[in-house]
Amino acid sequence: MIKLVLSDIDGTITDSRRVLSSSASEQIRNVQDSGVIVSLVSGNVIPVMYTFRTYLGLKAPLFAENGGAMIEDSITQFFTMDRPMAFFRHLEKKGLAKGIMTNQWRLCSMGFDPLGTVENEISPLSAQYNVEITNSGFSWHILNVGQNKGFALHYLMERYGLRPEEVLVIGDNLNDIPMFMDGVRKAVPANAEEELKMRADYIARSGYGDGSAEILSSLESF
Amino acid sequence: MIKLVLSDIDGTITDSRRVLSSSASEQIRNVQDSGVIVSLVSGNVIPVMYTFRTYLGLKAPLFAENGGAMIEDSITQFFTMDRPMAFFRHLEKKGLAKGIMTNQWRLCSMGFDPLGTVENEISPLSAQYNVEITNSGFSWHILNVGQNKGFALHYLMERYGLRPEEVLVIGDNLNDIPMFMDGVRKAVPANAEEELKMRADYIARSGYGDGSAEILSSLESF
Repeated sequence: MIKLVLSDIDGTITDSRRVLSSSASEQIRNVQDSGVIVSLVSGNVIPVMYTFRTYLGLKAPLFAENGGAMIEDSITQFFTMDRPMAFFRHLEKKGLAKGIMTNQWRLCSMGFDPLGTVENEISPLSAQYNVEITNSGFSWHILNVGQNKGFALHYLMERYGLRPEEVLVIGDNLNDIPMFMDGVRKAVPANAEEELKMRADYIARSGYGDGSAEILSSLESF
Repeated sequence: MIKLVLSDIDGTITDSRRVLSSSASEQIRNVQDSGVIVSLVSGNVIPVMYTFRTYLGLKAPLFAENGGAMIEDSITQFFTMDRPMAFFRHLEKKGLAKGIMTNQWRLCSMGFDPLGTVENEISPLSAQYNVEITNSGFSWHILNVGQNKGFALHYLMERYGLRPEEVLVIGDNLNDIPMFMDGVRKAVPANAEEELKMRADYIARSGYGDGSAEILSSLESF
C-alpha cells in the first residue's frame, strides 16, 4: 500500500508551458485527504515551494533546489552555497553562463542559462569544482555532489519510517532519476524522457499533469 | 468592454483555507486567452507572485506587498523598506508583534502576527512612524503611506491607457478597498466583507474562488 507520493513539478504536474494542471492539483489533494503523505521536489527555490505548499494546502515538507533545502513551518538547509557559487562565478567570468531570476532566492544551488555548450565546455569544468550539473527540462542547475531528488526521498523514508514498496515517485525528466530507486514504485506521464520510461512501473496514457492525475487517481493499483 | 481584470488572491481565488481554486484558475486563463489583461495584487511577496505568474501562465505584471513591488521579467520596487522596518522593530521591541515567515523575501513592507491588540496598541503607534497597517484576512502588514492596491491599479491603467469603465476589480477584504475606485467595475465573491459588498456592482452567488470563477465567466455583462 502506498503511504507516500513524491512528485516532481515542472512537466509532471504542469502542462508543457509550465502552467499548473488543475486535474493534477485536484488529485494531489484527494490523495492527501485519503491519508497518504504527499510531497513535491523541484529544482526551484524555497519561496516557490512555500507557495505550492500554501496554495495546494499540502501538509508534508516540500523540497527545493533538487532536495538541497526543505520547507515546512520553517526552512531546513541540507547543503551550502559555497561550491555552486564558486563554479557559477567561474562560468560567468568565462562568458559560458548567465544567471536566472530565481538565483536571488537560492540557498545551495545556482540556476543558469548556458551561453556555451554544456556537453563540451560547461560539464567538463564541473569536476574541478566538485559540483554536479542537471537540467529540469526548464532550466540548468549547479548542485553539490549528493544533492538530488534521491536525497529528498531518503530523508522522507527515514522520517516517516517507510519501506521502498510503500513509496510512489512521479517524474518526467533526467533529474528525477535519483529518486527512481530500487524497490520504489515509479510512474511517469507520457511526456517523460525515454530513460525514465525504461525505469517506470507505469506509463500514463496522457502526458504532463493529466498523466499524473491519471496515476494519482489509481493509487491503489500500485 | 472590460480590458483589464485586477484581482486579489487570498479569499478571492482561493478557498477559505487559502487553497487555490481550480475553477478560478481555469477562468483566469480563459479570460486572458480571450485577450483581456489579467493581473493579480496581493499582500504576499515577490517570489510568491513569481510563482503565480509562472504557474498560472499570466503575461501581465503582478503586484506583491499590496502594490509596493511588481514582477514581470524583472522586478520593480516602488516603495522602500525604511519606514515599515523601523515600525516593525519598534513593535518587536515592545513585545507587540512577531514577524512572519515571508518577511525574509520582503522589499518594502513587513508582515506580523499581533501579540498586542491592533486597535488599541499597534494602530495608534503607526501614525508616529508614518506607516499604514492592513489585514488581508490572512495576515497583518505594515506599509508605506500610499502603498496599496489602488496604486497598482493606477499604474496598470496608465501603462495600458485604460479608462475606469474598462477595468474590473475583484476582491473580498478591507485591503482591497483602495482599488474599488470610482468608475471602475467592482465584483466580489459571496464571502466578501460587508464594506466591499456595499461598494460592489456585482455580488457572486458563490463564495471564494467559485464566486470569482462565476464573475470571470460572465465578463461581457460588466
